[in-house]
Amino acid sequence: MTQTMTAVVKTRPEAGAVLERVPVPVPAPHEVLVKVRATSICGTDTHIYGWNAWAQNRIKNLPQVLGHEVAGEVVEVGAHVRSIAVGDQVSAETHIYDPRDLNAQIGQMHIGKGMEILGVDRDGAFAEYIAVPESVCWLNDPSIAPEHACVQEPLGNAVYSVLGEDNDVAGKSIAIVGDGPIACFAVGVARLCGMTNIFLVGMSEIGMKIGKEMGADHLLWVGEGNHKEYVLEHTRGEGVDVSIEMAGAPPALTNALDLLRRGGRFSAFGVMSEATVPFEYNNAVVFKGIQIHGISGRKMYDTWYRVRNFLSSKRLDIDPVITDIMPLEDYERGFAAMMEIPRRAMKVVLFPDRADYDDAVARRAGR
Amino acid sequence: MTQTMTAVVKTRPEAGAVLERVPVPVPAPHEVLVKVRATSICGTDTHIYGWNAWAQNRIKNLPQVLGHEVAGEVVEVGAHVRSIAVGDQVSAETHIYDPRDLNAQIGQMHIGKGMEILGVDRDGAFAEYIAVPESVCWLNDPSIAPEHACVQEPLGNAVYSVLGEDNDVAGKSIAIVGDGPIACFAVGVARLCGMTNIFLVGMSEIGMKIGKEMGADHLLWVGEGNHKEYVLEHTRGEGVDVSIEMAGAPPALTNALDLLRRGGRFSAFGVMSEATVPFEYNNAVVFKGIQIHGISGRKMYDTWYRVRNFLSSKRLDIDPVITDIMPLEDYERGFAAMMEIPRRAMKVVLFPDRADYDDAVARRAGR
Amino acid sequence: MTQTMTAVVKTRPEAGAVLERVPVPVPAPHEVLVKVRATSICGTDTHIYGWNAWAQNRIKNLPQVLGHEVAGEVVEVGAHVRSIAVGDQVSAETHIYDPRDLNAQIGQMHIGKGMEILGVDRDGAFAEYIAVPESVCWLNDPSIAPEHACVQEPLGNAVYSVLGEDNDVAGKSIAIVGDGPIACFAVGVARLCGMTNIFLVGMSEIGMKIGKEMGADHLLWVGEGNHKEYVLEHTRGEGVDVSIEMAGAPPALTNALDLLRRGGRFSAFGVMSEATVPFEYNNAVVFKGIQIHGISGRKMYDTWYRVRNFLSSKRLDIDPVITDIMPLEDYERGFAAMMEIPRRAMKVVLFPDRADYDDAVARRAGR
Amino acid sequence: MTQTMTAVVKTRPEAGAVLERVPVPVPAPHEVLVKVRATSICGTDTHIYGWNAWAQNRIKNLPQVLGHEVAGEVVEVGAHVRSIAVGDQVSAETHIYDPRDLNAQIGQMHIGKGMEILGVDRDGAFAEYIAVPESVCWLNDPSIAPEHACVQEPLGNAVYSVLGEDNDVAGKSIAIVGDGPIACFAVGVARLCGMTNIFLVGMSEIGMKIGKEMGADHLLWVGEGNHKEYVLEHTRGEGVDVSIEMAGAPPALTNALDLLRRGGRFSAFGVMSEATVPFEYNNAVVFKGIQIHGISGRKMYDTWYRVRNFLSSKRLDIDPVITDIMPLEDYERGFAAMMEIPRRAMKVVLFPDRADYDDAVARRAGR
Repeated sequence: MTQTMTAVVKTRPEAGAVLERVPVPVPAPHEVLVKVRATSICGTDTHIYGWNAWAQNRIKNLPQVLGHEVAGEVVEVGAHVRSIAVGDQVSAETHIYDPRDLNAQIGQMHIGKGMEILGVDRDGAFAEYIAVPESVCWLNDPSIAPEHACVQEPLGNAVYSVLGEDNDVAGKSIAIVGDGPIACFAVGVARLCGMTNIFLVGMSEIGMKIGKEMGADHLLWVGEGNHKEYVLEHTRGEGVDVSIEMAGAPPALTNALDLLRRGGRFSAFGVMSEATVPFEYNNAVVFKGIQIHGISGRKMYDTWYRVRNFLSSKRLDIDPVITDIMPLEDYERGFAAMMEIPRRAMKVVLFPDRADYDDAVARRAGR
Repeated sequence: MTQTMTAVVKTRPEAGAVLERVPVPVPAPHEVLVKVRATSICGTDTHIYGWNAWAQNRIKNLPQVLGHEVAGEVVEVGAHVRSIAVGDQVSAETHIYDPRDLNAQIGQMHIGKGMEILGVDRDGAFAEYIAVPESVCWLNDPSIAPEHACVQEPLGNAVYSVLGEDNDVAGKSIAIVGDGPIACFAVGVARLCGMTNIFLVGMSEIGMKIGKEMGADHLLWVGEGNHKEYVLEHTRGEGVDVSIEMAGAPPALTNALDLLRRGGRFSAFGVMSEATVPFEYNNAVVFKGIQIHGISGRKMYDTWYRVRNFLSSKRLDIDPVITDIMPLEDYERGFAAMMEIPRRAMKVVLFPDRADYDDAVARRAGR
Repeated sequence: MTQTMTAVVKTRPEAGAVLERVPVPVPAPHEVLVKVRATSICGTDTHIYGWNAWAQNRIKNLPQVLGHEVAGEVVEVGAHVRSIAVGDQVSAETHIYDPRDLNAQIGQMHIGKGMEILGVDRDGAFAEYIAVPESVCWLNDPSIAPEHACVQEPLGNAVYSVLGEDNDVAGKSIAIVGDGPIACFAVGVARLCGMTNIFLVGMSEIGMKIGKEMGADHLLWVGEGNHKEYVLEHTRGEGVDVSIEMAGAPPALTNALDLLRRGGRFSAFGVMSEATVPFEYNNAVVFKGIQIHGISGRKMYDTWYRVRNFLSSKRLDIDPVITDIMPLEDYERGFAAMMEIPRRAMKVVLFPDRADYDDAVARRAGR
Repeated sequence: MTQTMTAVVKTRPEAGAVLERVPVPVPAPHEVLVKVRATSICGTDTHIYGWNAWAQNRIKNLPQVLGHEVAGEVVEVGAHVRSIAVGDQVSAETHIYDPRDLNAQIGQMHIGKGMEILGVDRDGAFAEYIAVPESVCWLNDPSIAPEHACVQEPLGNAVYSVLGEDNDVAGKSIAIVGDGPIACFAVGVARLCGMTNIFLVGMSEIGMKIGKEMGADHLLWVGEGNHKEYVLEHTRGEGVDVSIEMAGAPPALTNALDLLRRGGRFSAFGVMSEATVPFEYNNAVVFKGIQIHGISGRKMYDTWYRVRNFLSSKRLDIDPVITDIMPLEDYERGFAAMMEIPRRAMKVVLFPDRADYDDAVARRAGR
C-alpha cells in the first residue's frame, strides 16, 4: 500500500498551487528519503507559483511538488547510499550536479552542464517528505534549528557573493547594492567576516531596517543623496574594496561599479530583467583594473562548509531575515507575503509538521 | 653651455611633429639620463601625432618630445640615485607611479592615482636622450637587443593580458580576439607559457600572418564561419579556458565572451571607442560564473620581471612582430606605416644612433 | 563460462610475481571493463614486487594483479555508467576517492580519507583487462599513443609539483632536485610552461642525460661544485623562484630550500626514507617568507585536464623518458631494469597485446 | 642651538639602558620628524636591553635610542616629502625597505634584502621625537588612540599570520599555538574575521586569560590532555583548517602541524631557538598536502591597511592585550614587566608626554 503525504503541488499550467495528498516518494538506490522539518520560499518558487513567462518556459512536468530550500531528517536510505544514515539531519543542494562534467572535475561543480534542479525539474520540498540524491545531501549540525538550516542555500549565495573567488574580505569595505533577503544575509556575512565598512544600498523600508540589524554601517537610499560622494568621504577617497550587485537592475549595476575603488572586486550576482545591459566598460572595468566574479548559485561545497560553521558556532544570527514562519498548509499566505509590493516579508519558512512549527515559535519567542 | 640633441617634437596643437634640435635634458637628483638606443611607436603616439580628440584633450604642455617605449644606456645618474649606474642598460615603465598611493601600497602600483606618463605628461623617448626617474627604470639584461628591449611595455601588456591576475594558463586554451601588435605578442606569450590551443580572431592579412608565425593554432577570420561552433568543436564542446578582447570593439567583446567556457577567465584589455557598450550580462557573466580581469597597463614590476626572463632566455622570439626598423629621422615614414589602413606595420622601431640601426639591420639579416 | 586472461600476479608474500591465467574481471554496475593497451611500472610497483617492508605492511589481499598506470579501451560498461561508452579510450586515476569526504567536497579530492588504490587495494593493470570505477576513468584523446597515455599519472605528479597550488610559473626559474622519471617529466613541463631558467640537480648519468633532452638549462651534479653560488650567478643573485624536492633525501631537501629565493615557492614531493628530518626552519622558511606546497598524488582532475592537453596538442614530447617498451610477458626484465642500481631505465611500458607493442615499436622507430 | 629631548638610550655594550637628554633628530629631506605620543616594547627591544647573544652580534652603533613601535604626530617634514604633512598622525613600519629590490618590485617588500630597521640599525622611538623616512610612514586615522596606534606592528604580525598569503579564513577553524601578545592579537583577529572555531594552545595564566577575552573558543593547556583528540572531536574528525606556530619551540611546531587537517594551511611565524629542528616531513607536509606560509614581519602595506580599518572601525578591541601603560621615564619597570618569568605583562606602552599618559589612563578607566 502506497503511503501518502500532504504537499503543495503545481497541478496546472496557471498561477497558484494546491495542497493535496500525494504518494510519499520512494527513494532510488542512490537517494535518501527526508522528512521535511522546515522549508522556505525562494524567489524561484514565486516565479513558478505565479506562473510567469520564465516558469511557463522552464517547467515541463506537471503535476510537481514545489520548493527546494529544505532541512529535514533522513528516514530511509537507498541501497547504494554510504555516507548518510537514518536519523541524520540534512539539507540539500538544489543543483544535482554531474560529477563527470568538466566543470565538476576541475572544482566548479556549481556551474556544470545539464544539472537537474530540485523543485524545478523534479519534485521539491513543500511536502512532508522529499527524496534527494545522496550526492547533494549536506549533513547539518544537529544544533542548528530547522528554520535556520533550511535557508542555507540563499545564505550560501550571500557567502559566495561576499567572499567571491578570492575570499579576500578581512579588514575591507563593501557596498551591497540591493536589499532583498540575500542582500541582508550578505550584510551579516560581511560583518561576521571582518569587513569594517559596510554600505547597504536599498529602497525598501523592511530591507534597510533588517540590513541595519544585520550590521550595515551605512544605509544609502536609492534616489537620495550622492552615493559616490558619500562613499568616497568614508573610504579616504578610494571607494569600496568590494561591491556586489544584488538588485538585478541596470542602475544598480552602474552604481555598484561606480562605488568600487580602483583594483577592487565586484561580485555579479543579480540577474537583470533584460538580457543585454549598457555597461561603462572602459571606465568601470579596463581603466580601473577591477575584477568581476560571476556568482551563479554557490560554490559546492565550499560555501556549505562555511555556512555550517557560521550557524553551528552561533556566530551568525540570521533570525532578523526570517520574517515569517507558518505551517505548510498556510503556504498561500506565505506566497502572498513574499509577492507583495512593496516588500513586506524576507524569508518565509514553512513547517509540514505542526510540532516543528510550535518549537520554532517557542525558540523565536525566547530570543 | 647647454648640449643639444635631435628629437621628434610636437610643437603645435595640430597633426604632425617636427625633427629639431632641443636641449639634452638635465636629470633631477632622483633621475637618470639615458642615451636612447631604440624606441618604438605605440598607438598612443599615433593619437598624439595625429592630434585626435583624445590628444587635444589630454596633452597640456607643448612643445613636447614624443614617445615612451625605450631602451637605452645610462650616461648620467642624479645625486640620489642608488640602484642604477652609468653604463647600465635600461628601459622605462611609462607610468611614473606614486609609491604612497594606496594602490601602490597594496601591490597595484600600475593603477594608482595621479600618475605622470612619459611622452604624455613630460618629454618622451623619440630623441637621443631621455631623463627618467630611477623609480621607473628597469634594468635590462645586456644580452637583449635594443629593438627587443624597447618593446617590453607592449609585450608586458600582452603578458598581463594572457596571465591575468591568476597566472593560470599552463595546459589551457585561449582565444585572442584582435590582431594588432599586442595581440600578436599575446599569441607568442600564450604559446611560450604552455597554452595548448590558441585561437586568434582577426581581420588583417598581416596580423593573421604574424599571429600564425607567433604560434597561433587556429586563425578565425572576422565575418567568416561560425567561430563558436568551431571553438566548441576543438575544445571538446567546452569553449576556451581564457579569452582576451584586444580589438576594442563591441562585436569583439561579444565574441570573446561567447567563446569562453563556463567558469573561464576573460581579460578586458581593449578600449572601446564608445564609453558605454551593450553587454550580455546575465548569460555571459552571471550564469557562466566567469571571471573578468580588467587589464590596465601592466602589473609593475611583475610583468617586467617575466618579460626580461622571456627575452634574455631567448625562449620568446618577437622579431616577427617588429615589422619595421628605421633611423629616428625617418619617423614620418614610421608613423605613416603605423597609421595606414589596412594595417601594414606592426611594431616600428626607431634608432637615434645610426650605429645602433646598422647593428639591428645586421642582426635581422642574420636570423 | 568465465573468460580468462593473462596477468602479472603477486601470489605469495615474498619477492617476485608470476604470469598466470586468471578470470577476466566482471565490472560492477558503476565500473567499466578496460582492455589494457599499455601499462607502465611505477616505483610503488617495484616496492610490491620486491616485497619491501612497506609492501609487507600495506598489501592485504593476495593473490592480486599488480600495476596501476594504464591506458586502454573500454569494452564493457556497468549498468549505472553514464559518461563512458564502449570504444572510449581511457586511463584511470589510481586513487578511488570518496566524493562525500570533506576534502573531496571542497576541491581536494586527491587527499581525501579512506581512498582505495588500484594495484594496491584491488586488482591492477598488469593484465589484459582491468575493471575500474567510472568515477576515476579519464577520457583520453584518441590521438594520444597508448605508451604516452599510460604514463599520465606520473606526468600528473610532475605537473602538480611544477605548478603547485598557485600555477605561477610563466617566466620564472626553477630548481628540480632529483633526476628520476618524474623529475625528468617535471623538466619537460617546466620548459613547456614558460619557465625560463631550469636547473636540474641529479646524480645519475641517465637522469641528467634525459633531463637535458627534456629541456634543462643547467645540470648540477650532486657533490660537484657550489650549487648555490652557481644558481645565484645565473639568477641575478636572487635564487630560483620555484624549487622542488624529488629525490626523497634530506640533503636534497636542504639543497632545494637553499637554492630558493626569498619569497619563493617550494613543492614538497619526495618522500623521505626517515619519518623525521632535520630542517632549517628559521632561515629556510620563516625569515625567507617562502611558501611550501605539499604535493600528494596529483590534483584531481585539474592536472589530468592539463596533461591531456599537453599530450593531445603534441606540445610535450615525453618519449625520452620512456626508455623501455616490451610485451607484458617480459615483465621480469622490466622490473629488473627499473630496480637496477645505478639506474638504467626511466619509464618501462608493458603491452599485453602484441599488436600494440608492434605499433609502439614502429612509432618510436619513426621519431 | 640644537634642541634636546629625553630618550631611552643604549649607551654601552651591556645590559640596560639609560634615560638621558640627546639632540632632537634632524629629519633628512626624505624624512619626517614625529613627536612620539605612544611607543610600545617589543620582544626585540628586550633582547637589545638584555644584551643577549643576538643583540651583541647585531647592534653596531652605540649609543642608540631603543624602540620602534610608535604612534605620533608629524611636527616637521623634509623638503622632498609629499604625502605627509605637519599635524598628521602616523605610525612607522620598522623595516625601511628598498623599493628597487626585486622582492619590493614584485609585491614582497616585507622580505627584501638589505633593509634598515628602526631601533636596530638607527635611532628608535623610545624618545620624545623620532625621524622616519616618508616611505615607511603610515597615516593613522585620528580616531585611533595612541596606545592602540603604536601596537599596529605586532598586530600586523598577527593579521599576516592569521590571513597568510591566501586570506582564506572566513568560516574556518584555527589553532593558535603560543600565548604571547601576538598570539593573543591573533585570537582577536581570527574572531573578528569570521573564524568559527578558535583553539588557543598555551601555558601561561595571563596568556590564556587574555586569549579567552580576545575570543578563543577553546583553551588547550600545554602538557594537559590530548590536544589532537580534542580538536578532532570539535572539528568533525578533520582537524583545523588553519594553524599557526607562535611559540618558537619544536614541540609547538609538531603540535601545530598535528592539529591541522589534510589540505590545511600552516603559518610559520615563531622563530625557533635552534637553527635546525626535527620535522615530520612525510606525514605532516607531503602526505597531508598542506601549505606552509613563512611569515616574516608583515606584508607591506596590505596588513597596515587592514589594521587601520580594524581599529578605526572599533570592530577590534585590543585593550585586553595592553596590560601596562606608563610614562616613558618608567621604562625600567616596563622592561622588567616584559622580561619576568612567568610572564606577567603582554604589551607595555610608554608615553613620553605626561598629558598623553593621563589621557590614556582616563580612556582605560572609562572602558
